[in-house]
Amino acid sequence: MKKIKVGIAGLGRLGKVHANNIAFKIPNAELTAACSIVPAELEYAQKELGVTDVYTDFREMLAKADIDAVAIVTTSSEHCWQIEAALDAGKHVFSDKPLGVNLEECKQAEAAVERHPDKIFFLGFMRRYDSSYAYAKQKIQEGAIGTPYMVKATGIDPEALVEGSIKFAATSGGIFIDMAVHDIDLMRWFLDDEPTEVYAIGSTFKHPEFKAVGDDETAVATYKFKNGGIGVIHVGRTAPHGYHVETEIVGTEGSIRISPVPEKNLAMLYNSNGVVTECVEGFPQRFAEAYLLEMQEFINCVCEGRKPGVTVYDGTKSTAIAFGTTEAWKSGKVVAL
Amino acid sequence: MKKIKVGIAGLGRLGKVHANNIAFKIPNAELTAACSIVPAELEYAQKELGVTDVYTDFREMLAKADIDAVAIVTTSSEHCWQIEAALDAGKHVFSDKPLGVNLEECKQAEAAVERHPDKIFFLGFMRRYDSSYAYAKQKIQEGAIGTPYMVKATGIDPEALVEGSIKFAATSGGIFIDMAVHDIDLMRWFLDDEPTEVYAIGSTFKHPEFKAVGDDETAVATYKFKNGGIGVIHVGRTAPHGYHVETEIVGTEGSIRISPVPEKNLAMLYNSNGVVTECVEGFPQRFAEAYLLEMQEFINCVCEGRKPGVTVYDGTKSTAIAFGTTEAWKSGKVVAL
Amino acid sequence: MKKIKVGIAGLGRLGKVHANNIAFKIPNAELTAACSIVPAELEYAQKELGVTDVYTDFREMLAKADIDAVAIVTTSSEHCWQIEAALDAGKHVFSDKPLGVNLEECKQAEAAVERHPDKIFFLGFMRRYDSSYAYAKQKIQEGAIGTPYMVKATGIDPEALVEGSIKFAATSGGIFIDMAVHDIDLMRWFLDDEPTEVYAIGSTFKHPEFKAVGDDETAVATYKFKNGGIGVIHVGRTAPHGYHVETEIVGTEGSIRISPVPEKNLAMLYNSNGVVTECVEGFPQRFAEAYLLEMQEFINCVCEGRKPGVTVYDGTKSTAIAFGTTEAWKSGKVVAL
Amino acid sequence: MKKIKVGIAGLGRLGKVHANNIAFKIPNAELTAACSIVPAELEYAQKELGVTDVYTDFREMLAKADIDAVAIVTTSSEHCWQIEAALDAGKHVFSDKPLGVNLEECKQAEAAVERHPDKIFFLGFMRRYDSSYAYAKQKIQEGAIGTPYMVKATGIDPEALVEGSIKFAATSGGIFIDMAVHDIDLMRWFLDDEPTEVYAIGSTFKHPEFKAVGDDETAVATYKFKNGGIGVIHVGRTAPHGYHVETEIVGTEGSIRISPVPEKNLAMLYNSNGVVTECVEGFPQRFAEAYLLEMQEFINCVCEGRKPGVTVYDGTKSTAIAFGTTEAWKSGKVVAL
Repeated sequence: MKKIKVGIAGLGRLGKVHANNIAFKIPNAELTAACSIVPAELEYAQKELGVTDVYTDFREMLAKADIDAVAIVTTSSEHCWQIEAALDAGKHVFSDKPLGVNLEECKQAEAAVERHPDKIFFLGFMRRYDSSYAYAKQKIQEGAIGTPYMVKATGIDPEALVEGSIKFAATSGGIFIDMAVHDIDLMRWFLDDEPTEVYAIGSTFKHPEFKAVGDDETAVATYKFKNGGIGVIHVGRTAPHGYHVETEIVGTEGSIRISPVPEKNLAMLYNSNGVVTECVEGFPQRFAEAYLLEMQEFINCVCEGRKPGVTVYDGTKSTAIAFGTTEAWKSGKVVAL
Repeated sequence: MKKIKVGIAGLGRLGKVHANNIAFKIPNAELTAACSIVPAELEYAQKELGVTDVYTDFREMLAKADIDAVAIVTTSSEHCWQIEAALDAGKHVFSDKPLGVNLEECKQAEAAVERHPDKIFFLGFMRRYDSSYAYAKQKIQEGAIGTPYMVKATGIDPEALVEGSIKFAATSGGIFIDMAVHDIDLMRWFLDDEPTEVYAIGSTFKHPEFKAVGDDETAVATYKFKNGGIGVIHVGRTAPHGYHVETEIVGTEGSIRISPVPEKNLAMLYNSNGVVTECVEGFPQRFAEAYLLEMQEFINCVCEGRKPGVTVYDGTKSTAIAFGTTEAWKSGKVVAL
Repeated sequence: MKKIKVGIAGLGRLGKVHANNIAFKIPNAELTAACSIVPAELEYAQKELGVTDVYTDFREMLAKADIDAVAIVTTSSEHCWQIEAALDAGKHVFSDKPLGVNLEECKQAEAAVERHPDKIFFLGFMRRYDSSYAYAKQKIQEGAIGTPYMVKATGIDPEALVEGSIKFAATSGGIFIDMAVHDIDLMRWFLDDEPTEVYAIGSTFKHPEFKAVGDDETAVATYKFKNGGIGVIHVGRTAPHGYHVETEIVGTEGSIRISPVPEKNLAMLYNSNGVVTECVEGFPQRFAEAYLLEMQEFINCVCEGRKPGVTVYDGTKSTAIAFGTTEAWKSGKVVAL
Repeated sequence: MKKIKVGIAGLGRLGKVHANNIAFKIPNAELTAACSIVPAELEYAQKELGVTDVYTDFREMLAKADIDAVAIVTTSSEHCWQIEAALDAGKHVFSDKPLGVNLEECKQAEAAVERHPDKIFFLGFMRRYDSSYAYAKQKIQEGAIGTPYMVKATGIDPEALVEGSIKFAATSGGIFIDMAVHDIDLMRWFLDDEPTEVYAIGSTFKHPEFKAVGDDETAVATYKFKNGGIGVIHVGRTAPHGYHVETEIVGTEGSIRISPVPEKNLAMLYNSNGVVTECVEGFPQRFAEAYLLEMQEFINCVCEGRKPGVTVYDGTKSTAIAFGTTEAWKSGKVVAL
């Protein structure tokens, strides 16, 4: 069995997840190099992952490491140039979402992908690979709900982790840039259509720190789609019960709803509170399997010379829609997309 | 519209429920007399129900009151002679369960019913009239689960009300006599068959007061049925979440499960405990509608001269099975029924 | 016990529900008169309800019947003048929602109510009296979810009944007037605040008949509230599983969700489809208890000289918001309320 | 990082699961040898797992292969002698359940384990490692349900796979030997106690083929425990909705129920059947993660020289209890354990 040699860039919380998956859980991959500007992360790569070929400079890794592919899990603002550099260096590229932090660099990334049609480019919209979401898509393709025409998506981070969001609020680009990109992608994917118009409002009732820097703690956006479909995205940061990601796809013959109760596992408690289901605590727990499945799919695409379902254009579009939504939210006006 | 005139005997907790239903919620009934040995209960009848014709003696009510029917909601040990006296006085009879406290008096009640084939006798197995149980029976009759061959029943009183059970433990006849009669009736009804053998065990971990008087706090009985079916009844007295009545009927093509989550209403709370459903607090709340529906059915049977689905023999059999189960539990042996 | 004498106007589907409740299920009420322009309805009143004092003219009933109160369950366009006439005739008034079909007549009804401060006026927003909604309100008042700041409401009629909606579409005033008034009222009630702005979009994928008359089959409205709260209403007419009314109230410390699974009863089926919960088929089934509870509350208010929680102003405001929402939906613009 | 070298014996359906986990998903393990009497299985090892060192004779693998540990996933009747041979050859041993097919060989396996206190012996009761079961155990240890005193376990194979069970029925040892061992282990584990007595009954309503060979299609066993606890096990082979494994642990302060709805994933369908949750299709799907987690724990125990929670005695006891249960079922009598 041929093993794809992968170098990872970025070993923060999510980087570690991807690195472990590549190193230990994907039969046809091996992690042969790692790059980070954080010394402790390289030490982690050496000690925990057994990767001895480590770099502090991304371009140096591209030039020297024995790698077929690169997994980019760096800060969002680094994604685009690293994608371009890696593709130009002849590597296959997995990049975590978002594609980029502005449309110009997204376009540059698109150009790089187009320049290298023989290379695999994979964008980390892992929810598409989650077994529940993939099942929903398959059921829809089988006609289980007729024509899907509406997506209602909710994504609320746990109150338990709100301090991190508060700290990051001033520089995150706002709640839609920060939180809605996955939901925007899902909405486009399930409806197989593009939004043409958005209206958005936000509110802050619990943590004035968000308002203080021009952000909001909760927000809702409503989208009109080209073919007449509707999207509603509700994002928030203060779920007391855990990490709440819920999605409903409504069609002419039925609907599919994913995780209205974001259960931690299959156990229910019957106690003096009533009947209680404890919930997942954060995205790494909720999407652990999806992160593995998407990386496995990336590696399989590389092995088989097959293009993945998610494209670079999905990245650009999601980013553009997130910006349009942000404009609607800030202006209070309906914005054409 | 002809209204059936009813006299009620017994105005305790459940008696009040029945009295209010007869007085105010059943179009073709009116409550015209009441009997109780408790002065406060007769005062209640006069003030709250507008019943002026009240008695302290059951036979006197039969002799003097302007009534077509009697609703007997007295202490269990009074049921049988009151049934007999009422039928012999030419009245239709509704009696709360159990039919009687020993088989001899059950047989006497049977004889009285047989003596008066033109009178309606109705036994208060209200669960059969609960909309969920009635729906289950109907689905089964429509073939939804093929041939039903197993019933798993759970009935657990709320810990919040355990003091009452403790007080009553020494004289209740034990946990199966006290608690299992409804489940025994349901088991026979859903399987349309009779048990031939029972094995039962009990345990007491929380309230030694039960053990101290020879009772148990939790118990399980397993029944073998004539046609090969199986019944399992789990009764208890210490549910921390509320009043837990759950029943599953297993058939060759499917099963039906009733209230695995004994929800108080349709609301769910998402809070720092997780996702929480609060539960019903007791049988009056859980079966409020069933008490009304069974009494309405009794009155309709009287109006239409129609025999109800539950018979006096169902009462005798449930009582006999409860006694057999008690013998199995006390002896630790398998008991033939 | 004093019984309030009630005359009912209108004996269509919902009128019959109210009439039966008044006649048979409310201890301190009696149905003494009925008015309808449909002969069969008056025949029903005589035969089924035992009401012999019947009228074809509303004003005549006011003038001649022996009634303390009137229950108005006529066509929406008749509500306001009948409210006014009844109050001016010295009767207490229960009126089904909506208050009126335009703001002018709502204002006239308001004036009539103000002219008769000693009379009870009760508007039929029965959802407030449904045990799950009332429980949610109580939990919120007890602080269970902190400060409520968002309401997400879904109301979808069953596909099984869509033919009726199609027939009525050209004259219904559009989907928001027709379907959203209850959700608008709930949103205002739970947030205890008024919306200031609305954006709305609709779509039609299954039944082009709606589009053909300028209506839509599904629609979403997003509301900004004065204090910063958010409301989202999703209405539709094609739920394949039954009658879907679901409401979520989000607060700073938790949320409450009502009937995400609009279960018909407490039974679940385990069969070759999976685990299946059958759903309620329509509003009369879902809100049967609420219709009784609201009427009981009206009668109690009359008996006790107590003003109900719902006011005539709630009626005007809901109507005004429904009109504003319709304008937003038709124009595609954000509309100030 | 030291990698434990593992040789696998048996590459049937479950053997393949374990082999893939060892080969690709456990960082500190590598699959270096394989043994099977089925040529296609060895070919699978070579082609799919990259294992070149293959054997048809178990003892030969022990003698020649470069392995630290052996994973035994052969036919049940081979387990005990292979365990003994492997331990005597100085290998750590993972054996799939059951420990053995009679008590004599279980005792021999015990002796072998005792002879080699420095070797890790791990018995594949994988349910203990499933995240929901492990969570339940942890919650119980934290006191969440007070003192656990009752276990109700249900394990029903899918009707879709019944043909396999029918074929195997004559030689399986009967439904309790075949299906109840996991539930017996869980019951002992959760109650931390041993059963002293069992009563059991079976029934066959759908597939007379079971009855024809002295087996049953469904069966229930009730256990009395030393400290007064109770166990109820319901096993079956004809669940129409999928693979149904459900367990409830009842304690003095609450209960925990695991997978009353054996959901396939987090999606729910709202369609003309109602609200539908599709279910897992079989044990490999339900316990995929548990198989990985238990093997990881085995390897970690080897690396750290740490004894696992499950012991060889758990294997003997579960087997003995399964035999006692079978005797109760066959004889119709209460059997002391």
